[in-house]
Amino acid sequence: MRQSCLVPPDSFTQMWGDLAAIGRDARTGGYHRPGWSVAEQDCVRWFGAQARARDLRLNEDGNGNRVAWWGEPTDGGVVTGSHLDSVPDGGAFDGPLGVVSALAAVDRMRVAGVRPVRPVGVAVFVEEEGSRFGKPCLGSRLLTGALGAAEAAALRDGDGYALPDTMAAAGVEPDLGPSDLLRSPAAFVELHVEQGRALVHADAPVGVASAIWPHGRWRFDFTGRADHAGTTAMSDRCDPMLTCAMTVLAANKQARLVDARATVGRLDVTPGGTNAIASRVRAWLDARAPDDATLHQLVDAVAHQAGARAERDGTSLAVEIESLTARVDFPVALRDRLVALLAGVPVLATGAGHDAGVLAAAGVPAAMLFVRNPTGVSHAPGEYAEPADCEAGVQALTAVLTDLASRP
Amino acid sequence: MRQSCLVPPDSFTQMWGDLAAIGRDARTGGYHRPGWSVAEQDCVRWFGAQARARDLRLNEDGNGNRVAWWGEPTDGGVVTGSHLDSVPDGGAFDGPLGVVSALAAVDRMRVAGVRPVRPVGVAVFVEEEGSRFGKPCLGSRLLTGALGAAEAAALRDGDGYALPDTMAAAGVEPDLGPSDLLRSPAAFVELHVEQGRALVHADAPVGVASAIWPHGRWRFDFTGRADHAGTTAMSDRCDPMLTCAMTVLAANKQARLVDARATVGRLDVTPGGTNAIASRVRAWLDARAPDDATLHQLVDAVAHQAGARAERDGTSLAVEIESLTARVDFPVALRDRLVALLAGVPVLATGAGHDAGVLAAAGVPAAMLFVRNPTGVSHAPGEYAEPADCEAGVQALTAVLTDLASRP
Repeated sequence: MRQSCLVPPDSFTQMWGDLAAIGRDARTGGYHRPGWSVAEQDCVRWFGAQARARDLRLNEDGNGNRVAWWGEPTDGGVVTGSHLDSVPDGGAFDGPLGVVSALAAVDRMRVAGVRPVRPVGVAVFVEEEGSRFGKPCLGSRLLTGALGAAEAAALRDGDGYALPDTMAAAGVEPDLGPSDLLRSPAAFVELHVEQGRALVHADAPVGVASAIWPHGRWRFDFTGRADHAGTTAMSDRCDPMLTCAMTVLAANKQARLVDARATVGRLDVTPGGTNAIASRVRAWLDARAPDDATLHQLVDAVAHQAGARAERDGTSLAVEIESLTARVDFPVALRDRLVALLAGVPVLATGAGHDAGVLAAAGVPAAMLFVRNPTGVSHAPGEYAEPADCEAGVQALTAVLTDLASRP
Repeated sequence: MRQSCLVPPDSFTQMWGDLAAIGRDARTGGYHRPGWSVAEQDCVRWFGAQARARDLRLNEDGNGNRVAWWGEPTDGGVVTGSHLDSVPDGGAFDGPLGVVSALAAVDRMRVAGVRPVRPVGVAVFVEEEGSRFGKPCLGSRLLTGALGAAEAAALRDGDGYALPDTMAAAGVEPDLGPSDLLRSPAAFVELHVEQGRALVHADAPVGVASAIWPHGRWRFDFTGRADHAGTTAMSDRCDPMLTCAMTVLAANKQARLVDARATVGRLDVTPGGTNAIASRVRAWLDARAPDDATLHQLVDAVAHQAGARAERDGTSLAVEIESLTARVDFPVALRDRLVALLAGVPVLATGAGHDAGVLAAAGVPAAMLFVRNPTGVSHAPGEYAEPADCEAGVQALTAVLTDLASRP
């Protein structure tokens, strides 16, 4: 029996349809697939079934990452893939497009009779969005050792459950830490929907990544004094909500000034009563910039303005860094090989973190392909890519994997 | 046996100590006594025991309000009291000070051999803070008919439990609606800790209320477009967090300009991801002013500025009024009688709603006594009144009740 008979020739469409309903909020059309949730685990089980249907060998590490191998896993393989988890109310494409395109590319290589001289792995990294435990690229960071096992074991989700307990409850035997799941690959290529509009402006369905902007998350704790909203004179207040509000606006302005990005998308107000002045407001600043110096200059400027306003408001400010990822430049040789294979497609930097970036930072020869996003919307239900552009993505990935896996 | 033997002469201190531990958060020192919670019901049971210890007749209505009567309840009585529930992490004084001072005043009248010609009632109104079902002065509003039984029956708490079910679970047979619990009193006097610093400025331990400022709650819904925090260019965003931040600052500024009060102490951000631009931010504006016209001018100005900023941010704004209470002027005759009895104590308006205000709005001859608050802090663990000022409050209330209950 030919391998290609195991799955239908329109495998992309079939797989896309399989995933469409999992973890979808019928009201918003967005997806809720935090790591180790029922929805994310349904996606993972679906991935296992896809591997079995293709006679791929499914390996798993103690962090919850998975690779389905075509061929005996050895060092020097070619690995592709992405993730299946989502941000809260996220889009359908961020993550799954890379996994589905990878499986479809394997199908096409088989149909085309490609006989790879290197094993080809399709990887699914766990908790890439960090939406459950607050650490983006949790799976790939553990795998590479960028995140220590002890630190990861101490992580708790919003309900207070520790990571190892959460994994065990989902049926994964936790064994956190560096793993040899990918072996030592000759190349890792992640296909991903673009999360901006650079390819729209370039009028190209597919592009190649040059670098990932340095990015991080800072927690701003504004502390004031709880008080009665009706009886406390305006001049007697120490209202941290004011300091926070000014900081939100300052972050926006500073990011525009240095052509970077700054966002406050998450807030926590204590005690949160309608008729009570807040005692504490906690705000998370997501900041990204083309280079490390600009990023730090941006965050310093925001913190400085916040501190000055805190003095005026009679509040206090503590800034804590929650995560910081330095700029990652994808290896130039591999990138140039992709550009050559794909007839001069555009090369672009991105402000988003990816598992491919974590791998590149750990010395893995990694590259990324982006698929055009007509609106640039991502991390939201409106995230989209045209079917023709998804097809262009699968074709590009097939060409790249064929080339990489065929060269000794 | 003399009535005064039933309770010790230092009854205030004893009662204050009884209540000190109920519903207290050992970490913050604040109190959590939402209506019909275990803590609030413990306070209510304590009140029942106090009534029995004094041979007072305890009546209750189908809304959960209670009155302990000294003498046969008839029309034309003199009623005092306050409430025993609290805001989340509230202070010890807001409510309980009025109840404890009322019982202590009854004790002192008896020790002094006062023989009232009118019955004297000590009232405890339920859910005054509205911290569980969102309607402040729930008990007194139901009793006076200011809130309809059907509307109240449809209220649900944060966990989705309906008011009647909550009452039944606490052992209260719900019979919502206007009640004759107070009979038709000749006077109602509520003693309350001041929630600002007017008495500090006036250098007086006790004051008399002139009016309750009009006050209300408005919900501002800012809607934008969820998007990726890292990849969406600043110029491509429709970020409702920015519109909300500017509105928070505008509310503060407008309130200062017209000598009113405006507070945003509660926010809800959707989806609330650290790395996602918000799709919607919901903010609650608590606004109060000396008169109805100023209040509406204030809220209109804030909404106007918010709308203009929304246009700039590419977001949209919907403003909905959640509650509005018109200005209440306490009857001048009763107020002047209190001032005369208390040797010219200061008269002050307040921005806080009270059961006495609900009763006054319903035509009950109602008055209030305020006890000095050294910091003005209220609705927070730091709420305080000096023992000497509490004593001055009990003396003032004793004098007032003695006078009102002794005149035929």
